[in-house]
Formats: sequence, C-alpha cells, structure tokens
Amino acid sequence: MNSRKAAMGKNRLEAFSDGVLAIIITIMVLELKVPHHANLEALQPLLPSFLSYVLSFIYVGIYWNNHHHMLHAAKHVSGPVLWANLNLLFWLSLFPFATGWMGENHFAALPSAIYGFVLLMAAISYYLLQQSVIAADGPGSLLKQALGSDWKGKASPFLYLTAMVLAFWVPGVAQAIYVAVALIWLVPDRRIERAISHTET
Amino acid sequence: MNSRKAAMGKNRLEAFSDGVLAIIITIMVLELKVPHHANLEALQPLLPSFLSYVLSFIYVGIYWNNHHHMLHAAKHVSGPVLWANLNLLFWLSLFPFATGWMGENHFAALPSAIYGFVLLMAAISYYLLQQSVIAADGPGSLLKQALGSDWKGKASPFLYLTAMVLAFWVPGVAQAIYVAVALIWLVPDRRIERAISHTET
Amino acid sequence: MNSRKAAMGKNRLEAFSDGVLAIIITIMVLELKVPHHANLEALQPLLPSFLSYVLSFIYVGIYWNNHHHMLHAAKHVSGPVLWANLNLLFWLSLFPFATGWMGENHFAALPSAIYGFVLLMAAISYYLLQQSVIAADGPGSLLKQALGSDWKGKASPFLYLTAMVLAFWVPGVAQAIYVAVALIWLVPDRRIERAISHTET
Amino acid sequence: MNSRKAAMGKNRLEAFSDGVLAIIITIMVLELKVPHHANLEALQPLLPSFLSYVLSFIYVGIYWNNHHHMLHAAKHVSGPVLWANLNLLFWLSLFPFATGWMGENHFAALPSAIYGFVLLMAAISYYLLQQSVIAADGPGSLLKQALGSDWKGKASPFLYLTAMVLAFWVPGVAQAIYVAVALIWLVPDRRIERAISHTET
Repeated sequence: MNSRKAAMGKNRLEAFSDGVLAIIITIMVLELKVPHHANLEALQPLLPSFLSYVLSFIYVGIYWNNHHHMLHAAKHVSGPVLWANLNLLFWLSLFPFATGWMGENHFAALPSAIYGFVLLMAAISYYLLQQSVIAADGPGSLLKQALGSDWKGKASPFLYLTAMVLAFWVPGVAQAIYVAVALIWLVPDRRIERAISHTET
Repeated sequence: MNSRKAAMGKNRLEAFSDGVLAIIITIMVLELKVPHHANLEALQPLLPSFLSYVLSFIYVGIYWNNHHHMLHAAKHVSGPVLWANLNLLFWLSLFPFATGWMGENHFAALPSAIYGFVLLMAAISYYLLQQSVIAADGPGSLLKQALGSDWKGKASPFLYLTAMVLAFWVPGVAQAIYVAVALIWLVPDRRIERAISHTET
Repeated sequence: MNSRKAAMGKNRLEAFSDGVLAIIITIMVLELKVPHHANLEALQPLLPSFLSYVLSFIYVGIYWNNHHHMLHAAKHVSGPVLWANLNLLFWLSLFPFATGWMGENHFAALPSAIYGFVLLMAAISYYLLQQSVIAADGPGSLLKQALGSDWKGKASPFLYLTAMVLAFWVPGVAQAIYVAVALIWLVPDRRIERAISHTET
Repeated sequence: MNSRKAAMGKNRLEAFSDGVLAIIITIMVLELKVPHHANLEALQPLLPSFLSYVLSFIYVGIYWNNHHHMLHAAKHVSGPVLWANLNLLFWLSLFPFATGWMGENHFAALPSAIYGFVLLMAAISYYLLQQSVIAADGPGSLLKQALGSDWKGKASPFLYLTAMVLAFWVPGVAQAIYVAVALIWLVPDRRIERAISHTET
C-alpha cells in the first residue's frame, strides 16, 4: 500500500516537472525572433542567439535525463522533495531569460557571467534535490549507492564559478567551460542504470 | 469498477491541471523582458519584475503542492469538481498578468491591490473546489477529516482583503502581507499526509 | 490484451490533447497585454479583451470537459480517431487568435463573425471526432447510446451560423448567442456519465 | 520486472515528448499576429502565415502520430534512445521559427529552403531515433519487422533536399513538394499497427 502511495506521488511530480521542462525548452526558441527580411544578412545576427539556444537546449536535456534517472531510483516522495524539486524548476525557468540575454548581447561579459550564475544555482538545486531524495529513502537508498562519488555533481559548481569569474576577463573561456561541462554530462548517469539493474536481477 | 472509474477521471484532472499550472509558472518568466544592453544598469529595472516573479512562482508552487495533496485524498471526481477546478485554474491563469503589471509598475497601489484581488479569488476558488471534493466523497470524506479546522484556508482571504485595502495607503504593507501568507502556506499540508497514512496503516 | 492496447493509445491521445488544450487556454491570457501605466484608465481598454478571454476560457473548458467524457466512453482508438482529434485541436488552436482579434477590436463585426466561424469549425470537428469514435467502437458503442439525440451537438452549428450572419448587422446579438450556447453546454454531458454508470452496475 | 522498468521509462519519454510537441504545435499559432484593424484588408496579409501554419501543424501532427506508433512498438528505452529523441525534439522545436519566417516573407526563396532544411534534419533525426529503438530492442525487434522497406522514411530526405535546391529557382515547386510529402505521410503507419495486432492475436 505504501509503495503505491509513493509511486502515485512520484508520477505527478514527474508529470509536473516534465511539463515545466518541456515548456522551458520550447519557450527558449521564442528568443529566436523571426527576422523581417528574407536574406542571409537578416539571419546572420541570430547566430549567437541560435548557438546559446543549442547550448541551453542541451543543458535542459541533460537535466531532464538525469532527473528521469534520479526519480527512477527514488522510492519515496516527501514534502521536502516536492519543494526541492520546485526550487530546481525555478532556477531552470530562468534559462530562457539568461539564454536570450547572452545570445542577444553576443556573449558579452555580464550576460555570460549571469548565465553561469543560473547554471550554478541549478546545479546546487539539483544537488539539494538529490540529498532530499536520499534522505526520504532512508538508509539503503538505491540512489545513494548509485551515485557513488558523484564527482561530476561536485565538480560542476566549481567549474561554473570559475567560468563566471573568467567571463569578465576572457569571455571565450567562460563559454568554453560551459560547453565542456555540458559534454561531461552528456554521458548519461550510467551509474544509476547499473545499480538499478543490479538490484532487479 | 467504481474505484477504477474514479481514479481514471482523477488522473486526467491532475494531468490537465498540471499542464495548466506548469504553463502558468513558466509563462510568468516571459514578463522578464530580455534587456537590449549588457550592463548592470540594464538589469536593475528588472528587479521589481524579478521579485514579483519569485513571489508568484512560490504561490503557484504552493497551489500545485496543495492541489496535489487534495486530489490525493479525493476519491470521486464529479461534474461540479471538474468545473470548480476549471474555475480555480481561471483565476490562477491571471497570475502572469497581475504579476507582470505589479512588477512593471514597481509595486504601485492599484496593481498591488489587483494582485491581491487575484490571490483572493484564487483562494476562494480553492475553497470551493475543496468543498466540492468533500461533497463528492460523501460522509466519511478523507479530505474533510484531514483538513480539520483549516485555519489557513479561512484566514488567507481576510488577509488578502486587508492587503488590498492597505495597498492604497501603504503599498509596502500589502506586499509584506502577500509574502507573509506565502510563508504560512510554505509548510505543506502535513494534516492530509498524516490522515492518509493513518488510514493506510 | 486488446483492451490494454486500446487503453494505452487512449492514454497518449488524452495526454497530448490535455497538453494542447492546457496551452491554448493559458496562451490566450497573453493577449491581455500588461499596460505600462498603473491606473484604472490603463486597465479599462482591456475590458473587452478580458471579457472575450473569459468567454473563450469557458468554451475551451467545455471542450476539455466533453472530450474527457467522450474518451472515457470510447473503447478503441483507430487511425481516423487520431486524425479527427488533431483536426479538432487545430481549430481550437485558433481560439487565441480569434479571441485576441475580437477583444482588441471591441467586438467589431468581422472579428465577431470570424470568432463564430472558428466556433463553428470546432463544433463540426467535434462532431466528426464523435462519429469516428463511434465507428471505431462498432455496433453497441457505449458513446452512441450515451449521446442519444445529441440535440446540443446538432443545434450549436446552426446557432453559430446565425450568429456569424447577425454579427454584420447587430454584433451584440452575435455575442449574446455565443454566450447562450456556452451556457447550454455548461451543463456537463450527464448522459454519458449516466450511460456509463448504468453499464458498470 | 524488466518489462515494468522499460514501460516506466517509455511513459515518461512519451509524456515529455507529448509536452514538447503540444507546445510546439501551439506556439506556432503565436506567429499569427493579431491585427490591429477589424477589416478584411487587415486579415489578408496573414494568409501566407496561416497557410504555413496549417502545413506545419500537419507535419507536427504526423510526427506525433508516427512517434506514437513507434514507441508503441518499442520494448526498451536505452540511453541512446533518450538522446536520439531529444535530438528529434530539437529540430522540431525549430518549426515555429522556420514556419514564421517563411510565412512572414510570403514563401521567399531562402526561408523556403531553410524550412526544407529543418524538415530534412527532423526526418534524419527521426530515422536515427528509429534505429536506436531497433538497436535497443535487439534481434526480433517488433519495430524492425513492422517498418518493412520503410520507403517513405528513405524517400522523404531526398525529396526535402530536392525542394531545398529548387526553392532558389522555382519556390512554388518547393512548396508543392512539402505539401506532397505531407500527404504521403498523412496515411498513418498501418504497417506498425498491423504487425502489432499480428503479434497480439
């Protein structure tokens, strides 16, 4: 009876998060304003906006992917988990703004640093959500085992911080770090997949 | 057979409500217009819009959270429940407008009062939805037991009314009341969680 | 096995339709443009937009409600059902445009007639969807029994047509008809609810 | 246990994809800007935008339909499937931009070619997703059997490429090809439906 109750809460948490993430990922494309002319010159100024859209799309995709694996490994959904999840969604909801500002200003210093700040807060929020899921599951949490050292989760905030500072001196390096962290994460959380299949077989 | 039927209707009601709430919460961020310049001076005028976005995000989060707990305790979904739910969604759908207007006008009197009016109507609609769920479940409604005195639900409308009136004299106090009511609600409806777990064990 | 298959298709059809309807209902509110001033004079010109938003919100709510009851009574989801459903969603997706145009032009003749045209096409599409569900279910369709004479479904298109023509002479009467038809439909499809409960007991 | 795990992943993949597709299909209508005047002259310039909206609505509808049939036949959801799906959603998310640009510029050469490019990339992405689903299911994949020669999937990219080139010489022919390919696909993937019903009976 208890497991059905937890599963029910999980379903709605997933559905709501999927909804918000789906909207965030699609709303970002609205920052690609349709140009009024039909030639290449009209398209060219959109390139930075397009590139930052691609980067943010990949980031939201990574969050969706990892969120999916995390909740798959979760057993219980407690009150703190609901709020930690809303907190994560709040920071992710700032992606369209941060992406649009950075793109429209051609990767200028301040917008690039603010973009890094939003990435940093999202990473911290994701970490807090992870901890609240582990706490809700109690000792023997499948997620905790699955995470192992979680070096990616621990390294990312420091890389974002570094990029934020560097954005004011060498903006190009900040962008390179954002891309590099995305690439590190593109490899999905195999650890969780593995831990789950170990348990189930 | 009857329970499966009820569960089915509940699922779709939850899915639709989750969709609308997810869109409302994400659409509000569109009122944070991307500035055309890349300096702090361009960001500063957005501060009131950002603060009202944070407040409204928390309010919608609270509604999602309580809605989730309410429907979890509901057994039947009747015609009046569907319409009471749509009525609640209608008033919540005005949040982006009220939030944007209040933010853009730096918490001026009238927009602050209108914001309070939308909060008031949402609170009344939530109360009506609650009553229709209790009525649909009949005597022995789990939700009714779980709610107890429901002092939060009864106090909130009066606090919003007070804030609406005060908005015309001391706008700052109105904002303080909106924040205070949000904080009161941030504590999730433990009562319902407790009542359910009592029943299930 | 067959029933599980049908149920699966139905779930996704419902989920996609719920998503589209949730977005349509929420996107319409974006036509309520946030005014730049904070006084009543700035709010007043929005009244027609607000009223047409309320009307359209109720219409989309009615469609969601009836769609919910219709699919609840459906057993099979065939290819034609999928396309009839997409056709309905297409016409409903024009609601934000028609609503915005009618509201912004204070219920002028042409926008009011076009609004009626979109209502008419949505009503016809709903009828076609109904027929395709009945056809997919074959003889003994629960939906067919439940619908009975379906006088509302048959009368609405003629009322919309009348309103469209009258819009060019006495716009007020057209609006009155739109409101009246909405009120007729506000009573949910008790017939289907009743037919289902008859079958299940 | 394994089948339940796969089903769970599938559900969330479907829910997220449905969300994104529902938003894409609805956001495109925002490119139909509400005119400020209430006469036919104000409506006429919207005709190309309306026609390209109809075309894109049908394309997204086809993708939703085929995606629905594809995942219905899929048994396993692997990491590569998740990413192949996100890649497809990325290209589909560019539909509103490409549609809006082509419509606003009355089917001019470059926007028409770019529209074809987005269609081409979406078709290739769909093919890659199909391959990753087949790979995840291993030998005896139901989807592989169901697809057969997949001549539509193989012919479409070449038709889009042809249209892209022709767009610079005879734009009208490019449009005709886009419409023709849509018509070819409008017939739903009966092959998969048939293969599934063969297996289940």
